[in-house]
Amino acid sequence: MRFLIIFSYDGSKYFGFQKQKNQKTVQQTLADTLEKINKKPVTVTPSGRTDTGVHAYNQVAHFDLDINIKTSALKKALNTILPPDIYVKKVQKKANFHARFDAIKKEYVYFINTGTYNVFEKDYVWQLNKKLDVVKMQQASQCFLGTHDFSSFCKKGKEDDCVRIIHEVVVKKQGSKIKISIVGSGFLRYMVRNMVGTLTEVGLEKITPDAITNILDSKNRCQAGIKAPACGLYLKKVYYD
Amino acid sequence: MRFLIIFSYDGSKYFGFQKQKNQKTVQQTLADTLEKINKKPVTVTPSGRTDTGVHAYNQVAHFDLDINIKTSALKKALNTILPPDIYVKKVQKKANFHARFDAIKKEYVYFINTGTYNVFEKDYVWQLNKKLDVVKMQQASQCFLGTHDFSSFCKKGKEDDCVRIIHEVVVKKQGSKIKISIVGSGFLRYMVRNMVGTLTEVGLEKITPDAITNILDSKNRCQAGIKAPACGLYLKKVYYD
Repeated sequence: MRFLIIFSYDGSKYFGFQKQKNQKTVQQTLADTLEKINKKPVTVTPSGRTDTGVHAYNQVAHFDLDINIKTSALKKALNTILPPDIYVKKVQKKANFHARFDAIKKEYVYFINTGTYNVFEKDYVWQLNKKLDVVKMQQASQCFLGTHDFSSFCKKGKEDDCVRIIHEVVVKKQGSKIKISIVGSGFLRYMVRNMVGTLTEVGLEKITPDAITNILDSKNRCQAGIKAPACGLYLKKVYYD
Repeated sequence: MRFLIIFSYDGSKYFGFQKQKNQKTVQQTLADTLEKINKKPVTVTPSGRTDTGVHAYNQVAHFDLDINIKTSALKKALNTILPPDIYVKKVQKKANFHARFDAIKKEYVYFINTGTYNVFEKDYVWQLNKKLDVVKMQQASQCFLGTHDFSSFCKKGKEDDCVRIIHEVVVKKQGSKIKISIVGSGFLRYMVRNMVGTLTEVGLEKITPDAITNILDSKNRCQAGIKAPACGLYLKKVYYD
């Protein structure tokens, strides 16, 4: 029986999502928990991986169980066994569902704090003790819209096909924070963090808003800004048909 | 030269405030940091200790340094050396100031979440998956006002004089959270957590609001409710003349 789960996690204490030898990862923790319930090993397939320190409000994954269990019972069992930094919000039975291949778009959000440092948010925002020009960041962000080759914004030499579609980018001031939401067809490794780091350089007036277009065109990672830290990044939503 | 500091800390990773052998405490961390700056050991005296897992928005402490240093330089040095879960907000030179003896009242706040569990708040609220009658809690909270013997609300057999003055108690619904603020002349060990635990039993309708008066009168710890967990508690403010 195939199951789909929607779950949130605090990525601070994990070496990312994907299974790695001798490292605590979200995928391994979920697989271990499901094995206890299923009494046999379980393969967990997420919509995509997230890097060390990156969080998720609503990650999606699928897996197959050999046992017959109600969705409500499975949800309860998972949340009882899982550590407090992973929480399953929804469990559904769904034949033929594939968390990765069926995903049509994804939304990420990123938080920058330009106000006083807050110890309670140390793992949850990028603390930047500098003033940012939000209007310029908003202008610049619109250059990402549409279909582009994102070679300049991905981990160097990592991907073959770097073309992705960005459907929406919203840069918004929320009190002392700046929230950047990005919806896209898919994202390359470090792509959101490199986009945010580059938008920040626009906000700091190190580069002009229209520089984004030139950086995209250059297809050269060295042209873009720094990679924003993982702790400010959240996978917000995965869209399916 | 005597200094006063106002600082916040995330208590999740500390064994409370007070120095303890072989345990990481806030006091020890501050003393170690100040020793690096002062080149000689420094004694840090707080307004009062907080227990393991309890947080502070604005704790106050004093200490004496042998070196001559500007307050702005000291603040910068402290925040550079201190770990990210302790942050010094203010540094002041103040001859004869005593953080504990000069304090005239304190404010604590406590957060209970009755909504969906949030992984990002696991160390910062008391997650209670039950409905609470906030109006009854508000009624009950007013029974604490004034001068009372708080023997029923402190750690058993711990204190000689259990008389304290409560100046204000506010119970407020904030979205899916309930915020309880308490201002008092001083607080016994576990007093706020025992008060909150007992108010919660009123909210759950296990006891009536006016039961609080009888519990106070009994001077018997067994009469009060459970001790609320440390993670929901914050030292908000220490008042001086």
